[in-house]
Amino acid sequence: MAKQPAATELETFPNPAPNRDYEIVIEAPEFTCVCPKTGHPDFATLTLTYTPDKLCLELKAWKLYIQSWRNVGIFHEAVTNTIADDLITALKPRKLALTGAFHAHGGITTSVTVEYQGKKAAR
Amino acid sequence: MAKQPAATELETFPNPAPNRDYEIVIEAPEFTCVCPKTGHPDFATLTLTYTPDKLCLELKAWKLYIQSWRNVGIFHEAVTNTIADDLITALKPRKLALTGAFHAHGGITTSVTVEYQGKKAAR
Amino acid sequence: MAKQPAATELETFPNPAPNRDYEIVIEAPEFTCVCPKTGHPDFATLTLTYTPDKLCLELKAWKLYIQSWRNVGIFHEAVTNTIADDLITALKPRKLALTGAFHAHGGITTSVTVEYQGKKAAR
Amino acid sequence: MAKQPAATELETFPNPAPNRDYEIVIEAPEFTCVCPKTGHPDFATLTLTYTPDKLCLELKAWKLYIQSWRNVGIFHEAVTNTIADDLITALKPRKLALTGAFHAHGGITTSVTVEYQGKKAAR
Amino acid sequence: MAKQPAATELETFPNPAPNRDYEIVIEAPEFTCVCPKTGHPDFATLTLTYTPDKLCLELKAWKLYIQSWRNVGIFHEAVTNTIADDLITALKPRKLALTGAFHAHGGITTSVTVEYQGKKAAR
Amino acid sequence: MAKQPAATELETFPNPAPNRDYEIVIEAPEFTCVCPKTGHPDFATLTLTYTPDKLCLELKAWKLYIQSWRNVGIFHEAVTNTIADDLITALKPRKLALTGAFHAHGGITTSVTVEYQGKKAAR
Amino acid sequence: MAKQPAATELETFPNPAPNRDYEIVIEAPEFTCVCPKTGHPDFATLTLTYTPDKLCLELKAWKLYIQSWRNVGIFHEAVTNTIADDLITALKPRKLALTGAFHAHGGITTSVTVEYQGKKAAR
Amino acid sequence: MAKQPAATELETFPNPAPNRDYEIVIEAPEFTCVCPKTGHPDFATLTLTYTPDKLCLELKAWKLYIQSWRNVGIFHEAVTNTIADDLITALKPRKLALTGAFHAHGGITTSVTVEYQGKKAAR
Amino acid sequence: MAKQPAATELETFPNPAPNRDYEIVIEAPEFTCVCPKTGHPDFATLTLTYTPDKLCLELKAWKLYIQSWRNVGIFHEAVTNTIADDLITALKPRKLALTGAFHAHGGITTSVTVEYQGKKAAR
Amino acid sequence: MAKQPAATELETFPNPAPNRDYEIVIEAPEFTCVCPKTGHPDFATLTLTYTPDKLCLELKAWKLYIQSWRNVGIFHEAVTNTIADDLITALKPRKLALTGAFHAHGGITTSVTVEYQGKKAAR
Repeated sequence: MAKQPAATELETFPNPAPNRDYEIVIEAPEFTCVCPKTGHPDFATLTLTYTPDKLCLELKAWKLYIQSWRNVGIFHEAVTNTIADDLITALKPRKLALTGAFHAHGGITTSVTVEYQGKKAAR
Repeated sequence: MAKQPAATELETFPNPAPNRDYEIVIEAPEFTCVCPKTGHPDFATLTLTYTPDKLCLELKAWKLYIQSWRNVGIFHEAVTNTIADDLITALKPRKLALTGAFHAHGGITTSVTVEYQGKKAAR
Repeated sequence: MAKQPAATELETFPNPAPNRDYEIVIEAPEFTCVCPKTGHPDFATLTLTYTPDKLCLELKAWKLYIQSWRNVGIFHEAVTNTIADDLITALKPRKLALTGAFHAHGGITTSVTVEYQGKKAAR
Repeated sequence: MAKQPAATELETFPNPAPNRDYEIVIEAPEFTCVCPKTGHPDFATLTLTYTPDKLCLELKAWKLYIQSWRNVGIFHEAVTNTIADDLITALKPRKLALTGAFHAHGGITTSVTVEYQGKKAAR
Repeated sequence: MAKQPAATELETFPNPAPNRDYEIVIEAPEFTCVCPKTGHPDFATLTLTYTPDKLCLELKAWKLYIQSWRNVGIFHEAVTNTIADDLITALKPRKLALTGAFHAHGGITTSVTVEYQGKKAAR
Repeated sequence: MAKQPAATELETFPNPAPNRDYEIVIEAPEFTCVCPKTGHPDFATLTLTYTPDKLCLELKAWKLYIQSWRNVGIFHEAVTNTIADDLITALKPRKLALTGAFHAHGGITTSVTVEYQGKKAAR
Repeated sequence: MAKQPAATELETFPNPAPNRDYEIVIEAPEFTCVCPKTGHPDFATLTLTYTPDKLCLELKAWKLYIQSWRNVGIFHEAVTNTIADDLITALKPRKLALTGAFHAHGGITTSVTVEYQGKKAAR
Repeated sequence: MAKQPAATELETFPNPAPNRDYEIVIEAPEFTCVCPKTGHPDFATLTLTYTPDKLCLELKAWKLYIQSWRNVGIFHEAVTNTIADDLITALKPRKLALTGAFHAHGGITTSVTVEYQGKKAAR
Repeated sequence: MAKQPAATELETFPNPAPNRDYEIVIEAPEFTCVCPKTGHPDFATLTLTYTPDKLCLELKAWKLYIQSWRNVGIFHEAVTNTIADDLITALKPRKLALTGAFHAHGGITTSVTVEYQGKKAAR
Repeated sequence: MAKQPAATELETFPNPAPNRDYEIVIEAPEFTCVCPKTGHPDFATLTLTYTPDKLCLELKAWKLYIQSWRNVGIFHEAVTNTIADDLITALKPRKLALTGAFHAHGGITTSVTVEYQGKKAAR
């Protein structure tokens, strides 16, 4: 089992339109980690929706951060909350939501959605 | 006809992020029980949506609990309400909804949706 | 042309969870009646959504009631309102909606939706 | 129960391009008859595919012919074969296929396909 | 180029359930008119949603009214507003919305939606 | 675990058009049996395609025969071949194919297709 | 009613790869003409598939040719055969097929497919 | 790399129904620009939704304006905000939203949505 | 990078119907390996279709074998051919096909299909 | 307007399984070039299907080759044939097909398919 990636692996760039509230949606269908109980891989689509404040998420580093979870053992609920925390730390967004939609196993499908409302808004 | 499963067959684990309200959706398309009037099997997809408080639903036990209904004779409205009651007893969630979407019979499709609003919320 | 069915043809059974507001959706894609102007058959999907109070709709009688319209001559707007009235009479529901979604004729598709809000609710 | 319609109710018009083999597909999704055993209505989509010889099928009469089956009691296999026979009698086509795709009942869907190869072809 | 049809070409019949607010949706996918600039035909689906007051829209006359636009030269925004005006004049509805969803041209698709809120409502 | 049903539970009726080769397709999406290794239920859609000779399959008995497998422990490959054998025994068809399309488990979906060519054909 | 367009309205350009048999598919979903019996408009998607010999179809002229049918009264079978004939005259293709897939009317959908095999092929 | 187009390249025409708030949706699936970091092309569908005040967007100039971005190097967030600014400058709309839905790259899909609420409204 | 799994990791069980040619299709949508050039993960759906001779593929071992590729660096064409070779070695099937349908990268999707025809067949 | 790319821009790597005939399908939905007549951009999905002989197509170079067409003025039929020729020159495949499926313009969609059969095959 590998170590969890750190929030510091996420990179940002300055928001080109900080005077306006607007929404960015980023869908990453190739997330995979490992079930800590069975050792079997889990697969999910991560959907991130956020309103940037001063910073936007850099996509190349986001992709590498996602790949860093590949051999980490962690449950669905924990990994979705941890990634949301890392994104909030790195982006300090006005608003953010993250959904981890995991593939079916044992005939059962699970998705986990975390929502965050920041303190500051443009309007 | 078999006996109904008990709420105690459901298992839980501690919520890894109890300080935050977040939503978990679990879809189980392989529910089957028996019509108490005709003896014919009924098939449904159960969709559970909940906001955990201190406890999360353990999926393996949920799967076995669902399988325990296989040979129980019970109507659509009753079984959906009973399973919702068992989940509320086991999880004591902040919020919960359960839909039983039954396959068509005699050309007619039925779904039953129960919603529950707990007393306590993080925000 | 046949006579319209009566609301008394609808049958009910006691609501197994009268202490809770919950929703039942029943879809019947095989409704047919006759256009009183042209004599041509009309086809529709009836979708009933209701929150039961003391009574639930019995599905076998609902199916037979629907079949009783087969040779009745009646317009789209009238038949949807009449069936909604019969259901309100028979079920005395907390809340009800009925949609008749008719197949296209002359390249034009029509649907009619009636909503009813009863006086009494559990919460 | 009503009487079966006769092949003579079908009407034709002269093929505008008899020197060429070409294919006409006519789909009628509003066929309904009655199950002779249960008295319940059956619904189907009829799909006719044919290569005309001297005659083409007139659509208005085809529609009325289909409507004439509305209250006839007959099984899936028998009605599809009978309608195919009526079409072969009326059209004397170079080639013909008829499928009756019946709606699900008791959770089971049936379709019946009859193919006919006439003796004469343009090429 | 042909002359625009008049609102008087629309016909109505008495609402069979004037004591209740209910919704009628009528979809007509075969609208066509002509671009006044290029002379090329435009195609659209018209979707009308309304709550009748004393009058309902007669479908046969609606179909003929739609056909009357076939050779009229008019822009997307103007024709959708004009047809909405004609419907409001003819029906005096409690509420009405009309969408003209035009096919793509030059790789670009346009739809126009007009909403109208009448003064009078049943509840 | 229950006992396997016998081919004799299948019922037939005389083919109404034995002089013609034609095809009947019957789809049953509510097949379930039990994995003999894990005890977990398996779910499948059975699709039967056949050309009748002297006999057609009676649908009500087919439905009950399918239900008889509900608590039988048997693998995918074995149950599909056994049901195909029972159908060949009961129907003596001119031609037959049976597919068992099983739901995904462990992220993996399996389907099994058996084809049979009888000795006798109409043409 | 307007006059039928002539084959001479179709334009061509030299095939850029005449030494090779290859296939061009052109789909035009905005064909409309008029029913000669009822005066109501008919709508269709024309799908042309051909293997060019010395000439390819020029698309702008094809579009205008299609528009020329807008107010012509003609039946489905006749118009599909006539357009195919015009295309064969103009293109002298190695191989050609034309399908006119007409919208449903009176609940019934029709499509007409003409195939042509030229005398000359590259291989 | 090419120069960015100017807002003055957008053209308008007088709103034919300025007394009414209504909505226009324009979808352009063929937007392409260039990633300033990698030099690889980016592709997106632009969806504009607006309520016109005195001016409507002329579609031909909109198409040419979109094409002017073809060889401009700019990031997703910046280009969507810039185009929204140009549209607000040119149209002075009552309300406007613009979404740039970019194709997946590196397995990750991004969309950016800007919303604008003008000061003036008809009602 | 991990070592490639061996064909000996695949397990089999005796074909329950060796006297008949029949087809088994197994779809595994959760295959992942690593690009040897970029180090980025690749994702694919593997679809195996085979006619068993004496042996059938055991699904649990197949799942584990697939998981063994998780950290192996190998190209699309090579991995699909290697897995096909391992399956042919383990199963000695009468007939086999394997498709690896890889997710899009750089906007480009690839799939690789290998077919094998064994020497021996039942009929 | 830019210059056409050369076949030499395509790169290859040795086929890892030259003893076997197998099929590779590569779909590139982001092809764009320019109409030489109107100057407007054209967009297409290129689908390449081939059986490699000694060489496989390198995907990164294929992507750059496709991008080189971005500002070239060329018709649909010509560009599809030219790219097919370049691929045949570079790959010397056992078998190849290339389809260019262009987006609709003026309401009309075109696709061009070129097929090539090489002289040499493994079986």
